[in-house]
Parts: sequence; C-alpha cells; structure tokens
Amino acid sequence: MSPAGDLRERVDKALHEFLYDAMPPVTSIAEELTPLVKAAEAFLLDGGKRLRPAFCYWGHRAAGAADSESIVKAAASLELLQACALMHDDVIDRSDTRRGAPSVHRRFAALHRVEEWRGDPEGFGEAAAILLGDLALIWADTMLAKSGFEAAAFQRALPIWDAMRIEVMCGQYLDVVEQARGGGSVERALRVARLKSAKYTIERPLHLGAALGGGSDELMVSLSDYGLPLGEAFQLRDDILGVFGDPEVTGKPAGDDLREGKRTALVALAVDGANDAQAQQLRSRLGDPDLDEDGVVVLRDVITATGAAAEVERLITQRLDAALAALATAPVDESARPALTDLADAVSHRAG
Amino acid sequence: MSPAGDLRERVDKALHEFLYDAMPPVTSIAEELTPLVKAAEAFLLDGGKRLRPAFCYWGHRAAGAADSESIVKAAASLELLQACALMHDDVIDRSDTRRGAPSVHRRFAALHRVEEWRGDPEGFGEAAAILLGDLALIWADTMLAKSGFEAAAFQRALPIWDAMRIEVMCGQYLDVVEQARGGGSVERALRVARLKSAKYTIERPLHLGAALGGGSDELMVSLSDYGLPLGEAFQLRDDILGVFGDPEVTGKPAGDDLREGKRTALVALAVDGANDAQAQQLRSRLGDPDLDEDGVVVLRDVITATGAAAEVERLITQRLDAALAALATAPVDESARPALTDLADAVSHRAG
Repeated sequence: MSPAGDLRERVDKALHEFLYDAMPPVTSIAEELTPLVKAAEAFLLDGGKRLRPAFCYWGHRAAGAADSESIVKAAASLELLQACALMHDDVIDRSDTRRGAPSVHRRFAALHRVEEWRGDPEGFGEAAAILLGDLALIWADTMLAKSGFEAAAFQRALPIWDAMRIEVMCGQYLDVVEQARGGGSVERALRVARLKSAKYTIERPLHLGAALGGGSDELMVSLSDYGLPLGEAFQLRDDILGVFGDPEVTGKPAGDDLREGKRTALVALAVDGANDAQAQQLRSRLGDPDLDEDGVVVLRDVITATGAAAEVERLITQRLDAALAALATAPVDESARPALTDLADAVSHRAG
Repeated sequence: MSPAGDLRERVDKALHEFLYDAMPPVTSIAEELTPLVKAAEAFLLDGGKRLRPAFCYWGHRAAGAADSESIVKAAASLELLQACALMHDDVIDRSDTRRGAPSVHRRFAALHRVEEWRGDPEGFGEAAAILLGDLALIWADTMLAKSGFEAAAFQRALPIWDAMRIEVMCGQYLDVVEQARGGGSVERALRVARLKSAKYTIERPLHLGAALGGGSDELMVSLSDYGLPLGEAFQLRDDILGVFGDPEVTGKPAGDDLREGKRTALVALAVDGANDAQAQQLRSRLGDPDLDEDGVVVLRDVITATGAAAEVERLITQRLDAALAALATAPVDESARPALTDLADAVSHRAG
C-alpha cells in the first residue's frame, strides 16, 4: 500500500474510533438523537480525500517528529472541522448533494417526510444540518484535545488551531458576500481563494502538525512558502472542477458552480476575456438555478473560448512550480520531502 | 451596588476586553468582515441576564475557591456559547427579534438590502447568522482557554465543557423534533426542558466553575441536587413568559411561543386539561404564524381557564423548594450560600 493510502486508512480508523466513543454519550441522552449521530458517521466515514489531515501529518514529520497515533488523531480532527464547514456551507448554498450523496439537510428533510411530521421538511432539514455542524465543530475540538499530546505541544498548536477555525468561517462569509456582490474581479476571487483554501486547507494544517512537533520558526516560514501557492493551485483546480469536473468523481452535479453563479477566478477571467456575444451568454446563464445540461455545455464552451480555462491552468502550473521551488530549499526532514512533493502534485492535478 | 449587579458588570467587562482583542485579527483579514464582528459585539454587549456566568462563578466560590479575574473570564465565555445557540436558534425558528432588537439574520438581510446586493436577502442573512454563530462557538473556546487557569484545572473542567456544548446542541435538536412531532406530552416537554435548561443553563455552569475551583465529588452531587430542579423551574418560567410575558421585559413579541406553536409543558398541560371548546381553540390557533394580539389574548385566557398556568406555577414552586432544600444541606462554602439562594429566587420569579 502507498504511504498516502496507508495514511488515509489510519485517518479513517482514528475517526471511526473517535465516533465509537463519542456517539453513545449523545444517543444515551435520547434515542431521537440516533439519526443525528448516524448522519455524522455517514458523512465522516464516507470518503473524502483527507487532504487536510495529510498536510497536518506531513507538517509534523517535516519538523522531524516521529510517526505516532497522536499525530494521526490530531490530523483526523481536521475532518470534523471540515465536516462542520461543509454541512453549514450546504445549507447556505442550498446544495442537494455532497460527495455524491444527499447533503445532510436533504437527508433530514427526507426523515421529516418519512415520519410525516408537521411543518416544513426543508426547514427541519436545515435545522438538523446547522445543529449537526455545530456538533462536528465541538467534536473537532474534543478529538484534538484527546489526541494525546503534551500540554506544551498544545500551547504551541492552539493559536494556529484558533486562527484556522476563525479563518474558515470568515472565508465562508467573504465567499457569500462575493456571490451577493456579483461581478467580482479576478483579484477579489483570488483573495477569497487564499483565505478559504490556501491558508485553511494547506498552510494551517501544515503549521498545526509542525507546531505539535516542535517545528522551528524557520520551518514555519518555509511551509508557508510551499503551502500558500499550493493552496491557490488547489482552489483554482476547484474552480476548474466546478465547471468541467466529472460528477462521478467530484460527487457534485456537472456545472454546479455555474448554476450557483459562483464568482470564481475562472469565471472572472472568462468575463474579462469575453467578446460581446460571449458576455451576453455569461450574463444570461450564469447563476440560473434551472440551467440544464445543454446550458452547462454552452457555458463550458464559452469559458474555454475566452481563454479563461487555459489561463487558469497556467496559473495552477505557476503556483505548483513556486511551491516545489520553495520545498526544494525548505529545511524539512528528509522523511517528509517525497510525500510533500506527491501532495503538491495531487492537489494541483486532482480530478475530484 | 449589589453583588449580582457587580458580577454582571465584571462579566460585561470581560466580554468587552475579549472582543477588543479578538476583533482586530478578524477585520484585518478583510474589511468586509467588520459588520460580522460588529454584530457579534452588539449581540454580546447588549444586555442578557448573564445567568450562566453567575452560576459558573458561584459554583467556583461554592468550592471554596477565591474570587479572581480568571473565573470571571471563564464564566463570561458561557455567554459566547449561548450567543451561538441563540443565533442558530433564531435562524431555525425564523425569529425576527432577540432581546428587543432585530435578530442577527434579520440584521444581515437588512444589510443585503441596503447594499442592493444580488440574490435573496433572507438567504444572505441566514448565511451570516450561521457563520457568526460558528465564530461565537469558536470564540467561546478561545476565551475559556485564555482565562488563565492552570492545566490541571482545565483538565478537570474540559469534560464538563464538552458535555455542556454537546448537550445544548442536542437539546436544540430535540426541541425541533418535538415541534415537528407536535402534540407532545408534559413528560416529553419536561425532558427537553431538563436537557436544554436544567443541565445546560444551571447544572453544567455550576459544575464548570466548581471543577475549575477543585470542588469535591460530594459538592458536585449537591450542586446537581440544587441545580437540576432549579433548571426545570427556569424552563417552566420561560414557558409562562413565552405566553404571558411583557414584551418590554422579555424582548420578544407578546405570545411568541403561541405563534411558533411551541410544545412546552404549559401548552401540553393546557391541551390535557382542555374541554372540547377549549381544545378546539388550541387546535385552531396554536402555531398560527399570523396570530394577532386578539388571538394571543384568547389563547392566554384558554390556557388560564384550563388550569395549566396555575399548575405550572405550582410546579415552579415545588422545584424551587427542592432546590433550596438541597442547598440548605449542601457542603458549599458559606461565602456562596446567599448568592445561590438569591439566584434560585431570581431564576424562578424573573419577569424576562
């Protein structure tokens, strides 16, 4: 088994064991809470790329710290934080699917219908998803606190953990504001990308792992030089997948970002590069919730024709190159260098 | 100044100082985040009874621990947790007001309108309230962690903190399920009350303060014997105020619970005690979102006529008596006894 696959299995196992302990105290409160914890379990154990745990783990190893179950648990706690962010994001975006399955609020709307309860099934679903997201946010904290590190390691890691949690929520808010404002510039889209992905998905997990492992200030700077451009590459790839991605791999309907009218860097570049006819197509179809498959194809063609897709690919390559150049001179432990190289490539070229 | 008023001012000051430090790291991310932190500030510093901090503080003193700024800060962090619960609750219940002011989601829907942004103002408001609630939940943690207690005190307190946070979210979910099911029994309403209020509002804060102060197991049991019946009294008083409360004092529209169709113990008792004509009134008007002032008056009269209001008052008195009896023999430090007696009375007889 590859080291990456092995790590993913260990993260899954850590989450499984955490839930095994965390669920009974909830269901013992009342049996009606069983669907809530079952939904958390399904969400958490149902795939996911475990990217954030991987960066956290390898940040730890980069600091020269040994492999341990503690770092796998601490890294896995990032999946609980991410679960909160995704559940709440799906309520905010009214997304019907997540990882190819119904989103949490859809799942609970369905429960409401099956039980023939009173009131609005959608409202019930949203309530459940908001509260389950809160529970995941709390559990993230508990899992990190119980990962087994010493107090001194926690003291180093806590400011990073706090900053990361705050940044992800602020990034989500800025994202919502960008959608509401509409017509954002490439620069504004990239700013949200830096916050939502560059820091949250890559730099902070690297720093968290490194801090738990006693990494030097110099290492922290190097990890930022590697992680920040890579995070932008991650988000730019996300933009591409949101428009051109294969639903079988992404777990999201084809062209979902187009239907939502997301103001990504890709879309901003397309708008900037569009001729009159293309601009007309973009204006009339972007953000149309009823956009069908043909409409998606039309918009894809327009985005390609404006040169925006190629430009985003160029930006991704540029950022990947910058990340790898930073890694080449970074004072990381040699045991971590191959994995950090592989991760950079995986993040930039993933298909889902 | 009374000791209670003095403590309230100290809690306010601790929150103010926390926000003074916590807000700049957020607004420095992007200026668009200013309305978010300003809304948090307005929500947190705008009144509130500071009941949970009071129980936490006096639980600490009950354990014989000295007064300190640390315990005031730790106690004040409960207001941040409560802010999350209330913001999310208002989204879930679609409540327009909180503490006499527009609820957070209404405030951000108004911002959306003023800015003439695209899309649905209500959806934007809900997104902002969900994310601001998340931020408050994270800040609660940060404030507790930075309160200045030693690692050993935290180790004692963390399991209580975790349990409390989980219980409040689970209590909210059970509340939503109860509303959806409709027609709940008195027993089921009281079960939710025990979870939402008895444990979360009173017992856990008492235990949190006592654990930070090194309270004995015996003290913990006594604080439960005092806190749990008192928490039920608190919730039962809440039921009364939701129907009969003065909007000037409660900060909620008159009869708000009736319009929402909340299945409180008070309502369940009214349904149980209703004759045919009264049952007809309850069925047709409870949960009517368009219920006007006259309708509220009719329902109030029905609830009084069934004897439910008097029965709830009797239950409150019974629980207050049980709490005071437990306090009389509890091994609490004598410095805390008068305040715990006053708190019991205040909780049971408050007007808002």
